[in-house]
Amino acid sequence: MRVALGIEYDGSRFCGWQTQPSGCALQDALERALAEIAGGSVVTVCAGRTDAGVHASAQIVHFDAPAPRPESAWVRGVNALLPAGMAVLWSREVAADFHARYGARERRYRYLLLNHAVRPALASGRVGWFHQPLDVEAMRSAAQALVGRHDFSAFRSAECQATTPVRELRSVTVQRRDALIMFEFRANAFLHHMVRNLMGGLVTVGKGRQPSAWLADVLASRDRARGAPTFDAAGLYLAGVTYEDHWGLPAIHDRADAQWASLTPLAGSAAP
Amino acid sequence: MRVALGIEYDGSRFCGWQTQPSGCALQDALERALAEIAGGSVVTVCAGRTDAGVHASAQIVHFDAPAPRPESAWVRGVNALLPAGMAVLWSREVAADFHARYGARERRYRYLLLNHAVRPALASGRVGWFHQPLDVEAMRSAAQALVGRHDFSAFRSAECQATTPVRELRSVTVQRRDALIMFEFRANAFLHHMVRNLMGGLVTVGKGRQPSAWLADVLASRDRARGAPTFDAAGLYLAGVTYEDHWGLPAIHDRADAQWASLTPLAGSAAP
Repeated sequence: MRVALGIEYDGSRFCGWQTQPSGCALQDALERALAEIAGGSVVTVCAGRTDAGVHASAQIVHFDAPAPRPESAWVRGVNALLPAGMAVLWSREVAADFHARYGARERRYRYLLLNHAVRPALASGRVGWFHQPLDVEAMRSAAQALVGRHDFSAFRSAECQATTPVRELRSVTVQRRDALIMFEFRANAFLHHMVRNLMGGLVTVGKGRQPSAWLADVLASRDRARGAPTFDAAGLYLAGVTYEDHWGLPAIHDRADAQWASLTPLAGSAAP
Repeated sequence: MRVALGIEYDGSRFCGWQTQPSGCALQDALERALAEIAGGSVVTVCAGRTDAGVHASAQIVHFDAPAPRPESAWVRGVNALLPAGMAVLWSREVAADFHARYGARERRYRYLLLNHAVRPALASGRVGWFHQPLDVEAMRSAAQALVGRHDFSAFRSAECQATTPVRELRSVTVQRRDALIMFEFRANAFLHHMVRNLMGGLVTVGKGRQPSAWLADVLASRDRARGAPTFDAAGLYLAGVTYEDHWGLPAIHDRADAQWASLTPLAGSAAP
């Protein structure tokens, strides 16, 4: 019996998705909890293996259950065993050929950047931070030049294990509301560190060190050494994974609304 | 030289505001950092002594500096010494008779409640949680009956040291945005545990165990034993403190505004 799960987590409390000998990874915590409910060992496959410090509001996982359990057991039962920073949002029995990684048609990542002179405190670990003013229009313009099917070698980490550096970046949006800038990246898939390397490039443009057109030049060079440093993991969220409808996954994967809102305590300033 | 500071913090990383022998309190962390910049010991007074687990986007503090320093030293210098979960947002030299606690004319607290079957993970420690459906209209109605100048003994902890249980509750607002319910309480001042005890009462009404009118009966009884249990600290934020204009504090105390505004439109679900 193959089961798909929707998972949410605070990446700052774990050492990344992928299993580690010390057991500190999200995968380790999840497989321990699943094994206890299943009464036998469980191996999970996820849609996107996030790095240490990277969060998810909608990670998707599949596994083969060694014993059948009701859907609620994979949610309530597993959540009772998981540490505070991780929760299963939903479970669904799926066809035996569903694959969380290979079946994914699109991934969506969000980056939350606090653009303020003072570093984050309340949102520490949940947002990236840049202290100098950033030009959103320049960043937006630079980002548009990257949209499309390209060789993204210039934004790929040396450790990336993908068989090809070609990815289809479908959209990048950049929105500012006062101190917070939010970036959203949609692609068929992403290379290792691709979003954080793109963020490094966008901030380089935003602060005026390079013109907007520079980012397209970096892309065309296919040379990682031409790009900017990898940006902080803290503001990065795996925010959505798309599968074909026939797999029957829930239409809404996450509860991002509440999560975003909780990063900071809301509207209305404390004007005297 | 008396200095006022605007402070932001993640209360889940400290053991409350008030100084502790072990040094784990927010006040301890702040006074250690201030002393290092000032070159001498510093005692701080805050507008609202938050409990362990309670956050602030706009705590206000004053202290007498043993040596003059530029305003930037009390922000950038102190922030370089504070732990990650706390930051000084601004500093202002104030008149010698300014008092962060006694000069406050109004406090504003917010409570963020995740109303969802699954406990928070990404927002763990930053929101309260209730798993059953809650009736916002009933809670709003119950809250309105409490507005005004009343003896709030029924919502006061046994440890409360205030000289009088009378407080003027100026407004309570309740808004739902999908899975998140946001409560805002404005009063001249609050008793110990008052907001969390009000929250316990509101949730009791919201889940239908008591009618809306019950909360006013509890208030009239002045009997803490008639009320509901104290609700979780995790969702509580000190979000504003108001002083008279002549003290010259910044018009905007926090940076919460933008962040919330920008987060909600993203409501975005990861629909396949």
